[in-house]
Parts: sequence; C-alpha cells; structure tokens
Amino acid sequence: METITIKDIARICGVGVSTVSRAMNDHPDINAETKQKIMEVIREYNYVPNNSARNLKRTDSNTIALLVKGVDNPFFGRMIRVIEEEIEKKQYSMVVRHVEPSEDEVSIAMELEKERRLKGMIFLGGFYTESADSLKLLKVPVVLVTSAKPQYEDDEFYSSVSVDDVKESYRMVDYLCTQGHRDIAILTATKYDESVGRLRLMGYEQALEKHQVPLNPKLIRYMEDGEDYSMENGYKLMRELLDEKESFTSVFAISDSLAVGACRAIHDVGLRIPEDIAVAGFDGIDIATYYTPSLTTIKQPIEEIAKETTRILFQVIRKKTKHTHKYFDGELMIRESTQ
Amino acid sequence: METITIKDIARICGVGVSTVSRAMNDHPDINAETKQKIMEVIREYNYVPNNSARNLKRTDSNTIALLVKGVDNPFFGRMIRVIEEEIEKKQYSMVVRHVEPSEDEVSIAMELEKERRLKGMIFLGGFYTESADSLKLLKVPVVLVTSAKPQYEDDEFYSSVSVDDVKESYRMVDYLCTQGHRDIAILTATKYDESVGRLRLMGYEQALEKHQVPLNPKLIRYMEDGEDYSMENGYKLMRELLDEKESFTSVFAISDSLAVGACRAIHDVGLRIPEDIAVAGFDGIDIATYYTPSLTTIKQPIEEIAKETTRILFQVIRKKTKHTHKYFDGELMIRESTQ
Repeated sequence: METITIKDIARICGVGVSTVSRAMNDHPDINAETKQKIMEVIREYNYVPNNSARNLKRTDSNTIALLVKGVDNPFFGRMIRVIEEEIEKKQYSMVVRHVEPSEDEVSIAMELEKERRLKGMIFLGGFYTESADSLKLLKVPVVLVTSAKPQYEDDEFYSSVSVDDVKESYRMVDYLCTQGHRDIAILTATKYDESVGRLRLMGYEQALEKHQVPLNPKLIRYMEDGEDYSMENGYKLMRELLDEKESFTSVFAISDSLAVGACRAIHDVGLRIPEDIAVAGFDGIDIATYYTPSLTTIKQPIEEIAKETTRILFQVIRKKTKHTHKYFDGELMIRESTQ
Repeated sequence: METITIKDIARICGVGVSTVSRAMNDHPDINAETKQKIMEVIREYNYVPNNSARNLKRTDSNTIALLVKGVDNPFFGRMIRVIEEEIEKKQYSMVVRHVEPSEDEVSIAMELEKERRLKGMIFLGGFYTESADSLKLLKVPVVLVTSAKPQYEDDEFYSSVSVDDVKESYRMVDYLCTQGHRDIAILTATKYDESVGRLRLMGYEQALEKHQVPLNPKLIRYMEDGEDYSMENGYKLMRELLDEKESFTSVFAISDSLAVGACRAIHDVGLRIPEDIAVAGFDGIDIATYYTPSLTTIKQPIEEIAKETTRILFQVIRKKTKHTHKYFDGELMIRESTQ
C-alpha cells in the first residue's frame, strides 16, 4: 500500500494543502468545521506528517542503552540530555536504565543486551572495577563516561571518556594548599568505592603528600553504602565532622551537590565561608555559580565529554575505529567559597 | 536449544557452582587460572546469569516512550528516575526523547510511535494546548505529567497527573499577601506560554485580585522564546527587573531553579533576602532546602506523581480503566527566604 500524503488528505477533503497544514498545526486562521473534517480524515487514513516520515530508516534495533548510576546528581541531567541529542542526530533511540548503588551494572547490561537488539551501550557514572572482567561478556560496543576507567591491563574491549579524576582532584587540593590550608577535610564516596570516589581521594592524598601535609584519617569522611552524591549526604557528612570538633580550615567535597550540603551545614553551626572554613566542590554545575557564596570547583566540560562519547561509540559501531580512551581537562574555577 | 545454566558451566569447567559464582562476581577467593578458564567457558557458551533470565518475557515491544521538555530543570531528574524505576518493575523499558522548547511534542510522538512498537507514552513537562487536538492522532495511551492539562472539552483520550498549578500558585501568592506584601513580582514562562507557566500566572493574578492588589504589568517578567526554567534565566530576569528600579518587596519565581538565580541577582546588587526582598519558588527540589537562605516554595509530591503516572498508564494499557485526570496537593513550605 502506498503511503498517504498531505496532498491526498487535501484532495479527499476538497481543500488545499495549506488548509490541511493549518488544521494540523492548530493555526487560528481556519474554519472550525473544516478543521474537524480534516482531522477526521487524517485519523481515518492514519496519515503521518511528512516531516515525521523522513526518519523511516530508524528502526527498533537502532537503539543505544544508557546505564546511569546516581541520577539524582544534577551533573548527570545535563550529560544525559546532550547524549540523547547526539544519539537522536544519528537517528538512533536511547533506552535509559538507572542502576542502584547496590546493583551490578554489567549484569543489567547483559540482561538488556539479551532482551533488546542494542547497537551499543553507554555507562554513565560509577563503574566498579570488580566487574571489569565481565565487561568482556558484552557483545555490543561499550563506552564508559565519567566513570573510573577500570585498572585493567586489557583495555581494548571498551572505550572511556572522562576527566582525569586523580589529576583534577590533585589540582584542587594543591590550590587549597597554596592558599595556606593544611587541615583539609574531604567528603568522599564510600570507603570501598572503586569508582571516581577512589580516584579523587587519590588526588587529594597525592597533593597533601606533595605539600608534606600528613594525612589525618579523621578528616576523610566517607559516605555509607548505598548513599549518593546528594546535598543531603553532604549536609550529613559535614554536620558529623563539625560536631566532632576536629580542627580544619577547609573542606573539599568531591561533587558540587555534596559541597552545597556542606555549605548549609557550616552555615547552620554559625561558621562563615570562607573566613572560618573554605569549601571546594567538583563538577561545575549551575548551582556552583549561583550559590551564595559561589563555589570554587573543578568544571568538567560536560558537552564535550558527552559529544565525544557518542562520537566514539558510533565510530566503533561502524567499525571505523578501535576502542579508545580519551581524557578531557577540567578547569579550576576559583570563586567566593575559598577566597 | 536448551538454555545453559550455571550448573552446566560448573560441570564443563569441572568445578562447583559456587566457584563459577565467585568467578562471575570477581570474588577475591578464587584461583586466577580457574577464574580465567571459567570466564572463557562462559563466553564460549554465551551464558547469561540466571537472575538475568528471569525477565525473558520482556521484549523490544514492551517499551514506554518518555518525552521530556526542559530536562535541565533538576525537578525532572528525580521524576525521570522514579518513572524509570516503576517502568522497570513492570518489565518494560523506557525510551527517552528530549523535546526542545521550539519542537512540537506531538509530531515527535507520532514519529516515535511509527518507528518503534510502543505500548504507551508519557509527556513530562510543558505541553502546549495548541496540539491538544493532534493528541488524538496517537494510537497508544498517553499520560501527561506535570504538564498543563489542555483546555479541551474532550479529555477522555488521554490521562494527566499533576498538582493544580493555578491553586498552588494562588496558595503561594495568597501567603505572600498575608505577610503584608503588595508589590509582588513574578518570574514566569514566555508571554505566549500555554503550559504550567500560564496556569501559575493565573494563580498569581487571582490571589492579587482577592487581596485587591491591582496588577502591575511591569512586575510580570516573562522568559524569552526558547528559554527554560534555569538558574541562569532566573538571574537574568531578576537583574533586569532590579536595574529598572521598579518598587517591589517580594518575588515569586515559578520554579526553584529560577528562584535560586533570582536570589543570586538580589545578593549581587547588595540587597538582603528577605529583609529587602522576599523570594518564593515552586517545586520543592533539594536546593530549596540547602540554599542559603533556604527557599519558601510549593513542594510537589514528586514520587507520588511519578508512581501514579505509571500506575494509570499501565492500567490503561491493560484496558483495566479508562483515561483519568488526577490532581495531587502541593505543600507550602515556609522557609528563610520569606520570613
């Protein structure tokens, strides 16, 4: 059967093409009865506008799965949006699956791969090196984005795109040290984290070592299992530290959301930022700009990371390139919360 | 061919089931060679763990499409997460498609419906009444969530879940009036908005009328076309209003993100919140709690709205109920920014 066109609809209704178009677009300049008749014919003939037909080559199997850990982090909102836009440009669709902190993303990926005809997968957020081995079990190309690249010798079976979390974290703590801080607390992921939390903690430790500041374990505050990078957790971790009366002059929260919660906790006990305690975050999301005080942070190039992720994924899908590992530079944004 | 089980893998490898399990889970207590051998067999036989096989009845066609307008709003991040979790519980998958402010969501929905075998659709965020008519062109059940319910007599062909935006906005502005404010600015959507922006503006106008406050058009600040409910736009709108030296004692921003930007603008011109200008938001996202000052807002019951949305959608899909329209109550949260 031939596809019905807007001209056919116009002919059947005895009107011009522009009138059908006006009816479809709810243009005010059309007679109500005429419009009703046109809409009835459109329904009857199951007409789909031409601009929708342009993408007919897209099919169910042109699907990319996006697995997301910790979507409450506003940092991911922007990332997901850009990734979706890029996938859409390629005429593919994006299936999203959130992964709970307690779930294993590779098992979920295998499940998705079996059920749906995927062309590729993107893992956004926390990735645990424990499952690096089982990544090999996946048949479609995988790109890890802003995840910790697993410490695994054989890295030719997946791609990764991120900032160098150790280096960027080092950059921030080095800056705090040059500002004269020696007692620097850190709000970080869980104690057994194998993802960016561990890498950012490593950068913190390396910067302190360079500045010959002995590590004070009491100033390292870990999330508990199952907790995420939320303002609520930043508040909780900071409140606990403040209540212990440990001496410190600055705090590095490994995400801006955690930093916002920390700022509120410092405010609630009557201390000032940065005069009493300087606060630094990580990510560079909007709230870091608009919070009062504005937050010193490491700005991740979210758009570039998202675009590079899809670019690499489609190149591997089309077998144009091998898997690759790409690092972007972050940018130290010095704002009110530390000066 | 029968599905291969973990017992088969164990038998082939000459080890116990628990050893295979340890290999799969990267348990430290396993010999490296044994593990390698097991992983090879797993790959060779294309074994998928049992806990993944439980969902085999899920297929490509068990898909719900989620169309999102304005995903940079953190309010949506949480909503999308809960909707995805609920869809996942039903063994369905979720395809996400972001819609630009300039795009028509019904055209996009028709396109998606044609290309993919969808079972239902959810429209999150702005919905424009102009396209209410063409909603009828969609064949699968549709639920509009936190969108403006179109002003359309025939509302039996789709469902909707939201707060009553007129009532909740009225509640907020009524509260500001009872606090003694008469010159209340509003930061709202575009001038020709037909979505929640228009409804919240209506609530503002009705509350002022009740308190016999004449409307001052200079205090109504509209976004420009294509702009969204971001902190950046809140800052920009507020800065423009402050620069005009119009007299006002409070501002109602129709989203918390806009309110955060407004607060920062007020701070930047050296005014105090709430002493010089009281600020109120809408949505009840985390930042309203952790901002300094904390933000008075209307808290939307995000989890309940998301769960009710998927509940209704699946009931309609299974033809257990007709389409329905459900309103939830918001909650007025009085915080530092207005008292």
